[in-house]
Amino acid sequence: MPAPIQVWTWPTPNGHKVHILLEELAEAGAGIPYEIVPVAIGKGEQFRPEFLAITPNHRIPAIVDPEGPGGERFSLFESGAILIYLAEKAGSDLWPRDPATRYRCLQWVMFQMGGVGPMFGQYNHFANYAVEKLPYAIERYTNEVARLHRVLDKRLAESPYLAGPGYSIADIATFPWVRNPERRNVDLGQYPHVKRWHDAIAARPAVRRGVSVLAESQRKGQMTDAEREQLFGKTQFAAH
Amino acid sequence: MPAPIQVWTWPTPNGHKVHILLEELAEAGAGIPYEIVPVAIGKGEQFRPEFLAITPNHRIPAIVDPEGPGGERFSLFESGAILIYLAEKAGSDLWPRDPATRYRCLQWVMFQMGGVGPMFGQYNHFANYAVEKLPYAIERYTNEVARLHRVLDKRLAESPYLAGPGYSIADIATFPWVRNPERRNVDLGQYPHVKRWHDAIAARPAVRRGVSVLAESQRKGQMTDAEREQLFGKTQFAAH
Repeated sequence: MPAPIQVWTWPTPNGHKVHILLEELAEAGAGIPYEIVPVAIGKGEQFRPEFLAITPNHRIPAIVDPEGPGGERFSLFESGAILIYLAEKAGSDLWPRDPATRYRCLQWVMFQMGGVGPMFGQYNHFANYAVEKLPYAIERYTNEVARLHRVLDKRLAESPYLAGPGYSIADIATFPWVRNPERRNVDLGQYPHVKRWHDAIAARPAVRRGVSVLAESQRKGQMTDAEREQLFGKTQFAAH
Repeated sequence: MPAPIQVWTWPTPNGHKVHILLEELAEAGAGIPYEIVPVAIGKGEQFRPEFLAITPNHRIPAIVDPEGPGGERFSLFESGAILIYLAEKAGSDLWPRDPATRYRCLQWVMFQMGGVGPMFGQYNHFANYAVEKLPYAIERYTNEVARLHRVLDKRLAESPYLAGPGYSIADIATFPWVRNPERRNVDLGQYPHVKRWHDAIAARPAVRRGVSVLAESQRKGQMTDAEREQLFGKTQFAAH
């Protein structure tokens, strides 16, 4: 029995990518033993020295594999890199083997990492969290969120999943950002192909388990001032 | 002589990543023949049907390889995916072969794609281009640009290059965003390890050639209202 991989994480979209993949691997019988190490970002735990030793970027998720390449302890951050690492380690088809399909998968993982994630995140900041409400910024990111949904809808009109005919880590990377569309004031009914794709993924047993990892830790109700400061105030920009 | 790869591009940081890699491959004797197809984004050429047929995201760069996987014509967008595709095609060590180093390279490519690129881009928007000057947004992205420089400086204090001892596509992805620091009001002298790294990369002959691709097309002087509308106005969010 190999030693479990530590997953330093929190129930956010980037955390859920990794939770979903690990549950999909288990579902497919190619499971990698793992243990969850919660990093309560609302309490500033991402700035603890033991986490900074794993990632200088103090963002979840990060993993520590006691048996990484060459049998050595190996740590890795950035959710997009972790998905590829874990899928390769498990030898899973969720990272497609066909070269053309694999590059398309990589392309859509990058689209999520460089577009969907950061831009949906900026929308969340200005529309939902920033104390100052700035109409210019809210409109900018509302427009960009809509544009990115249209790009996804165009792709999913021609292909069942983002990389091609099969479900892949590109879908696993993107789904946690598209779910809960009401938080971004998005009506998925406007994007019928995205909706079909979303509903198919949401119904997968492994996805249901993945998005419930640490569910008991999820913030209930209003954010406190202390949480807001940790997540959106100057603390995040302080030198660590 | 294989048919050249088409590089649909423009002299922006994301375009320069691909230009630099192609010149590095040529410098190393593993060159891939390529031709530049300019996409004048200030004139809205990214919305032309022939470009949208390659990328539904209407962003440069994108490539078309007449001899892709299986000998078939293959198109790809997202600069991070293109770097990996081209380095693998050329069999180059710029995409490291050692598994641990390769995953670290991937991690820093993802950090550039998800952090440095989008966040420096938001700084540029609010500080340099937006007609409305919003102190809250400018401060937010000034802080984030500084934070990301500190993360890079911490990494480069312990390692000559981002992935490890050798120069790699992680550096090629990041360098075009770090150069010209005055455009982000950044003093690289505050980040001595980033400065050492920047200066070493800037001096490479292939990098000098890469960043001069389409130099003659670069905007001189003030942006016109028409260019501003194409780049930063509503046009980018219109359905295409």
